Amino acid sequence: MVLTLEKIRAAGERISGYAVKTPLLRLSAMDSFLGCRVYVKAECMQVTGSFKFRGAVNKALSLTPEQLGRGIVAVSSGNHARGISYAAKLLGAKVTVVMPLTATAIKVSNTKALGAEVIQCENQERFKVAERICAERGAVMVHPFNDEDIMAGQGTAGLEIAEQCPELDRLIIPISGGGLFSGVSTAVKALAPKVKVYAAEPSALPRYTVSVKAGTPTAVPSKKTVADALVSLIPGDKCFPCVAANADGIAAVDDEFILKGMKLLLAEGKVLCEPSSAIGIGAVLQGLIKVKPEDNVCFLISGGNVAFDQLSILDDVVI
Amino acid sequence: MVLTLEKIRAAGERISGYAVKTPLLRLSAMDSFLGCRVYVKAECMQVTGSFKFRGAVNKALSLTPEQLGRGIVAVSSGNHARGISYAAKLLGAKVTVVMPLTATAIKVSNTKALGAEVIQCENQERFKVAERICAERGAVMVHPFNDEDIMAGQGTAGLEIAEQCPELDRLIIPISGGGLFSGVSTAVKALAPKVKVYAAEPSALPRYTVSVKAGTPTAVPSKKTVADALVSLIPGDKCFPCVAANADGIAAVDDEFILKGMKLLLAEGKVLCEPSSAIGIGAVLQGLIKVKPEDNVCFLISGGNVAFDQLSILDDVVI
Repeated sequence: MVLTLEKIRAAGERISGYAVKTPLLRLSAMDSFLGCRVYVKAECMQVTGSFKFRGAVNKALSLTPEQLGRGIVAVSSGNHARGISYAAKLLGAKVTVVMPLTATAIKVSNTKALGAEVIQCENQERFKVAERICAERGAVMVHPFNDEDIMAGQGTAGLEIAEQCPELDRLIIPISGGGLFSGVSTAVKALAPKVKVYAAEPSALPRYTVSVKAGTPTAVPSKKTVADALVSLIPGDKCFPCVAANADGIAAVDDEFILKGMKLLLAEGKVLCEPSSAIGIGAVLQGLIKVKPEDNVCFLISGGNVAFDQLSILDDVVI
Repeated sequence: MVLTLEKIRAAGERISGYAVKTPLLRLSAMDSFLGCRVYVKAECMQVTGSFKFRGAVNKALSLTPEQLGRGIVAVSSGNHARGISYAAKLLGAKVTVVMPLTATAIKVSNTKALGAEVIQCENQERFKVAERICAERGAVMVHPFNDEDIMAGQGTAGLEIAEQCPELDRLIIPISGGGLFSGVSTAVKALAPKVKVYAAEPSALPRYTVSVKAGTPTAVPSKKTVADALVSLIPGDKCFPCVAANADGIAAVDDEFILKGMKLLLAEGKVLCEPSSAIGIGAVLQGLIKVKPEDNVCFLISGGNVAFDQLSILDDVVI
């Protein structure tokens, strides 16, 4: 199966009325800091606070009543958890989410608040734990990225970007497992082939940098990063070919620059995002993606699930 | 002279290419907290970080080269200062701004960064100081609100609101001297007469509550408020008739609720504003403006000129 524009459009029709069309903002106050004309796609303003709801509700709407009745099991650092828990709640299904111990407190509490059961374990164990629970309970696994319905759902953000920003030159997308990048890049490359599309991942977990070089999905060791939403250790095998085909570049960004990006977006752009979502801004600040003053550059801001008391991580960050 | 829709439209044509059309955001994540369908007009994303640039650049573009050559003197708590300083810089004029001692550090530094001279004094003395400087130097006074070109410029935000949110039921606007409210309410009442328009002022400085009751502009004593941008002591005499005619209600909001509003907009809406700009949200949280779940309510978020280190005022605020 190959992800296509048609499948993404079908997802767009399926989830309309559930997910919202998020704003695409022109934030000129950031131009001088980044050296380009800055746009952001504000998925931090999506239902459940991140793009993950797009894929999750698309998947949930694709399940049969019998499947929904068996319950859903998901693996997530928090945003897919909240997305699938809300989608399942709308459709009357039970959810169990396996989250890494590194998940932030607000992501755990947001998920529990939707009635989901949360089980926490070491990051590298989470898929094994989820598969065991699925087998024990006969539940349906909803993978956070390596699933065509999920990828197509995330791609609906790309349909909107192409429509909302016809002047776009470059698009920078956070990447972890690869579901968001696969969907969005497929939509944008089909609708606006001249746009350069880049992936940005934490330098602590450079699974796509390593895998694209190796030509095959390759695992990296688990390491700490401020990008709590970007902790996948290996590309999804369904996502990898899309990323390898569509990425005009992959930036491995240091935590220091991720935090600078987050502070810049907040202080000058007036938009609050979670650390992971600022990674594209960090990539430009670190000089990993070259831009020119006349370039129209859109940063996909993937989520805003960050607690007020987490903002102290920005206290000593200098933009 | 009476402020009219035609004058506001003329201002809109004059400032296009200078001020930007700011986004009007539908922020459904805030609905359950406020009991209505929440929209915000994000003037925190305006050039110079507040709506004040609209009026300032409209005024500056209305001055003759001879007037510009004499230099500009302004009175401002900070947002008009930044707006007029940037407008003057674009047109090659010198600016001196008289700011109250209560002006925040970031507003003083933002103004100085544009090359303006800043003089600080007690809040109640600022107009006297400015008039003395004007007389001494032969400079042109650009009043922060009591000027028809300023009011017409601010009103251009109202043209945009009426176009961007045709489903609007209620609009809540921060008020200090009354320039913003006069302009925006004149535009909105002309284009969408069914919309109810409310003003929100700090309960510490209730100059419009007092003046509307008295039927004439009436001064209130200088007092402290977290709303550093809303410190006018008396309505402008050109603004007062507009406000008296157009306001469907005036809410005098406590600091506690202004800060709750600011934290709610940041935490759930993902938008950073300065304390003053959250006063409309505070008015609803305090129960001063009644709304219903099906009401489409727009909060005009007047500015975002707040420093990161000021955010600690929200630490102990409970939404």
